[in-house]
Amino acid sequence: MINSKYLKAVTKSIWLGGCFLFLNGFGTLLSQTSAPSDSALIRSIYDEVLTNGEAYENLRVLTKTIGHRLSGSPEAAKAMEWGAELLRNYGADSVYVMPVIVPSWTRGDIANAYVELSSGERHILHITALGGSIGTPDNSPISAELIVVKHLSDLDTMPRSETEGKIVLFNRAMDPVLINTGSAYGGANDQRGQGAIAASKVGSIGALVRSLTHSLDTLPHTGAMYYSDDVTRIPAAAISTVDARKLAKLYKTDPYLKVTFQMNCKALPDVEQGNVIGEWRGSELSEEIITLGGHLDSWDIGEGAHDDGAGIVHTIEVLRVLKAVGYTPRRTLRFVLFINEENGNRGGIKYAEIAAEELERNEHIYVAAMESDAGGFSPRGFSMDATDSLVDLVKSWQPLFEPYNLHRFKKGWSGVDIGPLKKLKKRPLLIGLVPDGQRYFDFHHSTSDVFENVHKRELELGAATMASMIMLIDKYIPTP
Amino acid sequence: MINSKYLKAVTKSIWLGGCFLFLNGFGTLLSQTSAPSDSALIRSIYDEVLTNGEAYENLRVLTKTIGHRLSGSPEAAKAMEWGAELLRNYGADSVYVMPVIVPSWTRGDIANAYVELSSGERHILHITALGGSIGTPDNSPISAELIVVKHLSDLDTMPRSETEGKIVLFNRAMDPVLINTGSAYGGANDQRGQGAIAASKVGSIGALVRSLTHSLDTLPHTGAMYYSDDVTRIPAAAISTVDARKLAKLYKTDPYLKVTFQMNCKALPDVEQGNVIGEWRGSELSEEIITLGGHLDSWDIGEGAHDDGAGIVHTIEVLRVLKAVGYTPRRTLRFVLFINEENGNRGGIKYAEIAAEELERNEHIYVAAMESDAGGFSPRGFSMDATDSLVDLVKSWQPLFEPYNLHRFKKGWSGVDIGPLKKLKKRPLLIGLVPDGQRYFDFHHSTSDVFENVHKRELELGAATMASMIMLIDKYIPTP
Repeated sequence: MINSKYLKAVTKSIWLGGCFLFLNGFGTLLSQTSAPSDSALIRSIYDEVLTNGEAYENLRVLTKTIGHRLSGSPEAAKAMEWGAELLRNYGADSVYVMPVIVPSWTRGDIANAYVELSSGERHILHITALGGSIGTPDNSPISAELIVVKHLSDLDTMPRSETEGKIVLFNRAMDPVLINTGSAYGGANDQRGQGAIAASKVGSIGALVRSLTHSLDTLPHTGAMYYSDDVTRIPAAAISTVDARKLAKLYKTDPYLKVTFQMNCKALPDVEQGNVIGEWRGSELSEEIITLGGHLDSWDIGEGAHDDGAGIVHTIEVLRVLKAVGYTPRRTLRFVLFINEENGNRGGIKYAEIAAEELERNEHIYVAAMESDAGGFSPRGFSMDATDSLVDLVKSWQPLFEPYNLHRFKKGWSGVDIGPLKKLKKRPLLIGLVPDGQRYFDFHHSTSDVFENVHKRELELGAATMASMIMLIDKYIPTP
Repeated sequence: MINSKYLKAVTKSIWLGGCFLFLNGFGTLLSQTSAPSDSALIRSIYDEVLTNGEAYENLRVLTKTIGHRLSGSPEAAKAMEWGAELLRNYGADSVYVMPVIVPSWTRGDIANAYVELSSGERHILHITALGGSIGTPDNSPISAELIVVKHLSDLDTMPRSETEGKIVLFNRAMDPVLINTGSAYGGANDQRGQGAIAASKVGSIGALVRSLTHSLDTLPHTGAMYYSDDVTRIPAAAISTVDARKLAKLYKTDPYLKVTFQMNCKALPDVEQGNVIGEWRGSELSEEIITLGGHLDSWDIGEGAHDDGAGIVHTIEVLRVLKAVGYTPRRTLRFVLFINEENGNRGGIKYAEIAAEELERNEHIYVAAMESDAGGFSPRGFSMDATDSLVDLVKSWQPLFEPYNLHRFKKGWSGVDIGPLKKLKKRPLLIGLVPDGQRYFDFHHSTSDVFENVHKRELELGAATMASMIMLIDKYIPTP
């Protein structure tokens, strides 16, 4: 059944792709390889990963012996060594570091907060500094009355007397009706990214941002925040959803309550770290590069297990399993453990800069780039940032993934690290693994993003799915 | 996009279904209702459940105030009252109990086991009685040498001297390469169901069965086991996967090790309990019944949260949400909280017996039956046990579910409780909700099947998915 559907789909994609695809080797598909061998190869990939998979144990080592690993930290440096060694052990032809100057920031050891009611009663608030925030002045507590808003623009219409000297609580929840939790996240993270700027513009002295999660709990979720050179920098913290809700409720009946918080986080000088890269040279078209990766850095709380330890061990497992099943890549596969996705994406930017230079010199052609940065959950499919004809070609392979319950093959977001490759003159296929996303933001950027919250089989299915797709891309994607 | 795809699919299903479907009202679909209104109604169902859903809180009450609820137990009786009250509160036109005589069995308070090596060294083994097992004789420990097998048939070829008086460890793991964990479960559960019979036939005195889970942990997973009248009943227990693996390893180097275990479980007299049924009378075809349900009973360890508290609160939420969005059912919707799925399925059998009688008297026509009994995880689609034309009709609705990431619409297993309806002269559509199954057997029939392991949004998505499908079935399924 898969067989005939598959051939039909492939034929269709030739028509959609047109002559260009045909001239670039895609037309050789039907004669050179037949669907059953792809189907059998994919089955052997899943079998190998589900019986002898090492992704889960690798994730345990990364999360439990190194732990969290913010760019610029000694732990990030250790993770780079660990990753390089694994890539070597699994048989990459060459392993090297692409140097990247990364920011360095430290959370410090203080993030205290409480609310004091008019009655004098105090309640502890669970907060943590947003990444990149300054500390409170002199690392001493700041105290002020509160204002509660849902949108940055709410501040624009408030009289200055209401905003000056206050602490702003940005309290817009992620929209629960969006099925794609990533969209709900995207629809709420202006508060985290731009909240401190908006609050400072109206004279406020601090910002608290409701944690970006659907989960109602007492864990603050950190993440990147930004400043603007034209306004004073003010400290900004994430506050747990339970505390944000409680604070907003208390404020309704007691609008003169006072919030106090204290943090001693600060920026440190930039340091040199880098993208760790393992290469497996192609047998036919070694100048053509297929990139796959995740990001090695994580936030400095929790263990970066789903974000993005999962993507790192997925990537490394693709190397292991394709060797284990005896696959010989036509193109050069480049396994990239990106640095600094969380607070700057300098690793992804540097990688694309060098790619552009190599392309200019006709040294390498970047054919495709795949990223896993949405957690280690049950895979559902792929999201592609590419031309319609490439998207249609990849979609035509869906029947090969039907036995593995993968159905979502859509145009859309691919990934932060590979995103800058979009600007290459010859644009590669950018493709992101899409796992089930319902649980992701429960853990994201919080102390609960730990190994124990990753499921072995779900993690393994993600790795097998990536390996299978890399194999098909290697075999069938036309040279751009 | 959905719109045109949908109409195309519907047209196709008319052709597939042929004249019969047309004559039975299905042909009115294209004129009476248009796809956008279905699409909008489905959107309103998901929105309502994701913003005001009560399934999660209902599950908390069921699991935390009643807890586990094996058929025949006082807790099962309490759960029946709880369920009836909820159905009444949510506005069912009538709520009643269909009496069912159910078995009663008690685990007792002892399930001790250890292995003693030739050196005299002892290790505790984590076991629990299989449901229905007798206790050890006089509730005293039994001690014997071990034999380890992977298949029931392995025992047939062993000399009687090797099996007589021994304790048998059935140690075949669930097959990890099967993507569908339910298939892996089905492929291993002969050990649990028939192990005691096979072991007794060859003169062994006890059976230990490797827990049916992919998870490597120290939790024994219980479940139904059976005896045969022609062989002596011997005690049988589940042993955790970690202990089974350890025991098999120790046995390889120390074949004369001795296993000791003790249990005081026993059968009690049957009691009358029943299926709790809420009816919402149809506005046009009230004699036509659409059944939906889960099972109220659970095993007597853990809290029966995924198995099948989730199915129960799914079912009740369908009533709540269809009322909340102002839907008026054409057919009578019957919300059934089945009793005794776990160890006898007497609730499901009784329900089908009565259905057959009503059908005989032309009192009711059973149009469709839906079950949720595969956990509260992210829904992936539906599995159908029906004629090809009905399966094709339901498949044609997939585009309406595309925004909710539901893709799996296949012929296959529907559910234990609704299974006996298959024998009705006029066969209804039997349809089971299919959630993601990777985690299900981690918890299944063990102490870890608790509320904390159910995810709020995933549970809610399941309820919204069922409600949407019930609405479409009510509107469009032809009368059998």
